[in-house]
Amino acid sequence: MVSKEMWALGANRSVIRDLFEYGLQQAKIVGPENVFDYSLGNPSIPAPDAVEEAIRNILTDTDSIKIHGYTPAIGDFATRKAIADDLNNRYSAGVRPEDLFICCGAAPGLIAIFRALAASADAEFVAIAPFFPEYRPFTACAGGKLTVVPADTEGFQINMTALEEKLNANTQAVIINTPNNPSGTVYTDETLKALGEILTRKSREYGHPIYIIADEPYRELVYGDVCPSFIPNIYPNTIVCYSYSKSLSLPGERIGYVYVPQQAEGRDELYPAVAGAARAGGHVCAPSMWQKVIARCAHLRPDLAAYDANRRLLAESLKEMGYRMASPDGAFYLFIQAPGGDDLAFCQRAKEKNLLVVPGTGFDCPGWFRVCYCVSPEMIRKSLPVFKALIEE
Amino acid sequence: MVSKEMWALGANRSVIRDLFEYGLQQAKIVGPENVFDYSLGNPSIPAPDAVEEAIRNILTDTDSIKIHGYTPAIGDFATRKAIADDLNNRYSAGVRPEDLFICCGAAPGLIAIFRALAASADAEFVAIAPFFPEYRPFTACAGGKLTVVPADTEGFQINMTALEEKLNANTQAVIINTPNNPSGTVYTDETLKALGEILTRKSREYGHPIYIIADEPYRELVYGDVCPSFIPNIYPNTIVCYSYSKSLSLPGERIGYVYVPQQAEGRDELYPAVAGAARAGGHVCAPSMWQKVIARCAHLRPDLAAYDANRRLLAESLKEMGYRMASPDGAFYLFIQAPGGDDLAFCQRAKEKNLLVVPGTGFDCPGWFRVCYCVSPEMIRKSLPVFKALIEE
Repeated sequence: MVSKEMWALGANRSVIRDLFEYGLQQAKIVGPENVFDYSLGNPSIPAPDAVEEAIRNILTDTDSIKIHGYTPAIGDFATRKAIADDLNNRYSAGVRPEDLFICCGAAPGLIAIFRALAASADAEFVAIAPFFPEYRPFTACAGGKLTVVPADTEGFQINMTALEEKLNANTQAVIINTPNNPSGTVYTDETLKALGEILTRKSREYGHPIYIIADEPYRELVYGDVCPSFIPNIYPNTIVCYSYSKSLSLPGERIGYVYVPQQAEGRDELYPAVAGAARAGGHVCAPSMWQKVIARCAHLRPDLAAYDANRRLLAESLKEMGYRMASPDGAFYLFIQAPGGDDLAFCQRAKEKNLLVVPGTGFDCPGWFRVCYCVSPEMIRKSLPVFKALIEE
Repeated sequence: MVSKEMWALGANRSVIRDLFEYGLQQAKIVGPENVFDYSLGNPSIPAPDAVEEAIRNILTDTDSIKIHGYTPAIGDFATRKAIADDLNNRYSAGVRPEDLFICCGAAPGLIAIFRALAASADAEFVAIAPFFPEYRPFTACAGGKLTVVPADTEGFQINMTALEEKLNANTQAVIINTPNNPSGTVYTDETLKALGEILTRKSREYGHPIYIIADEPYRELVYGDVCPSFIPNIYPNTIVCYSYSKSLSLPGERIGYVYVPQQAEGRDELYPAVAGAARAGGHVCAPSMWQKVIARCAHLRPDLAAYDANRRLLAESLKEMGYRMASPDGAFYLFIQAPGGDDLAFCQRAKEKNLLVVPGTGFDCPGWFRVCYCVSPEMIRKSLPVFKALIEE
């Protein structure tokens, strides 16, 4: 009597959630200080003080009905203006408020894009391994087909030959996620330009644009001298999906946006199709008080010092032990080759020592595992002997 | 290149939004005091002070990472517990926290229910006119078929004979909305019992449950001595979809819940199917700070004095002029028979006098029009001569 597909999505728990809950149980048995939980990408730095100050100010200076009332479905003008101004200041991007659609975090934004582009049952989307596993149900439920480019496990950039083989007349978009979950790597400008060139050529060949969908929740989480470009500046047929979950440490609050550049081909059909797909998914407006917070805080950048310190400590220690990993330039993940080659077996051995790391298999990249370093430095320090024991076993 | 269906949903603007924006434009021309905008159901009473106090307290007494972090997809336990306690205190309803799923307002909750129940392409849902027009795209995009029971324009209850004719082996649920948008009427216990009896009989006949989907954002907005029952207490195979949009005047904040009673048939398949359908729609969690507010405020009731005063003033004045209307016992709507019989023509004539009311045609009930009385009493008073002129024309 119920949809089997929906039931399976609800009943089959995610590996990551299972690990996380196992960690909570183990903490009761062996003590929380003896569980090393690297499973969940939940920001460990607080929201900037200015965010909470903005909330207090809004409660004081704005009428309750205006704070909490419906906004236009596309979002408050002031919010869209603040985001456009910020993007233009940083990237000379030519963003107009009317090119932005404020959504309840990146997940429904991505689904709206997939659904807008799933023009027929043949529509195909290309993902590049390793990738966020929810792309699978998102594209399936949007009525599209997902094809996967195998991981480039040398540099965790894009294997362009393999990518090109996946493109065909049904390809509507290539979804990329840089800085990347789970690899922590950042696509170089060379990678993005090469991708743009292939897509330009193939779009011409097939007579329709192949879009990039840029899933960018980690855009600001980059370290050292890494300075990623704004992808629509490289390839104009890019649809951006952004979230404030990581940059402002507001993952539970569900606030983000979709950006359809005015220079994107078919922009005048695409933007309303995204809005319509959002409506079909139950979007009324993004949380209204949070829209008002973003109107005041869109220019803020996260203070990454704590993540960066964790990153260095963990990456350097593990490399010294002999672990091989993807270049950890962004997000808050290390992606590490599993000693022995079997990520599921390695993660199981780790779990038995109360070290919780996520197998790469779920990200379409077996043989590797993911470590989220949005944790306390104390936990990292205490966990190092376990990592050492595991590689020596 | 884009989905025509999604494009149409985004590009075809709603009549109500169009009216509302026309009103804003006219206000610039003739002055806001000369535009009588009864188009939008945006609460006009502020959120209770306790809500904003709860926000300030949460910012003070709770860690930032906990306030804004991801919650479980089904919602914080404390939130679900507070809602269950409140429902049990009021209705002896036997609600358990694990029967609740906290969602981003009623719209995605309804879609998740539709999608969970759209087990095959033949799945049918029955709506009872007049009804919220979004039920159409919601059921269509969930993969189901919507059939409509014509309005009972005598009492705006349910024409049970007509309802029974719409039921068949493919019927998965009947969606009801009481207090009703747009009619403002409340289904009596007799109506609900009669509905429950038919559905029980038909469920037996077809060998599977036919659920009631109770869309209840107006549950607490009832006037006089009207005291509606909790629908699952009358018919256990009821799935409730609730929102705090109206009861706490938080329509923009997107916080509500789905309740799948433990006594509902197939509960153990239905609840995960709803959760899975929410996930397929991009649900990660409901806004986390708002969950914490509801954990502290679930017991609050709205102060309806302002709505009730508006309701009496407008209903009594219009009746005196000769308007015939549905019994205005709930929500914040009057549903009025269009003088002359043509609602579209009447609403157009009204619009020309800067009186903005919504044709019933869009609610599958031509010949009637909707007036939202969540407005200022001054506006009502100033608009009365226009209503008078319209009925006298």
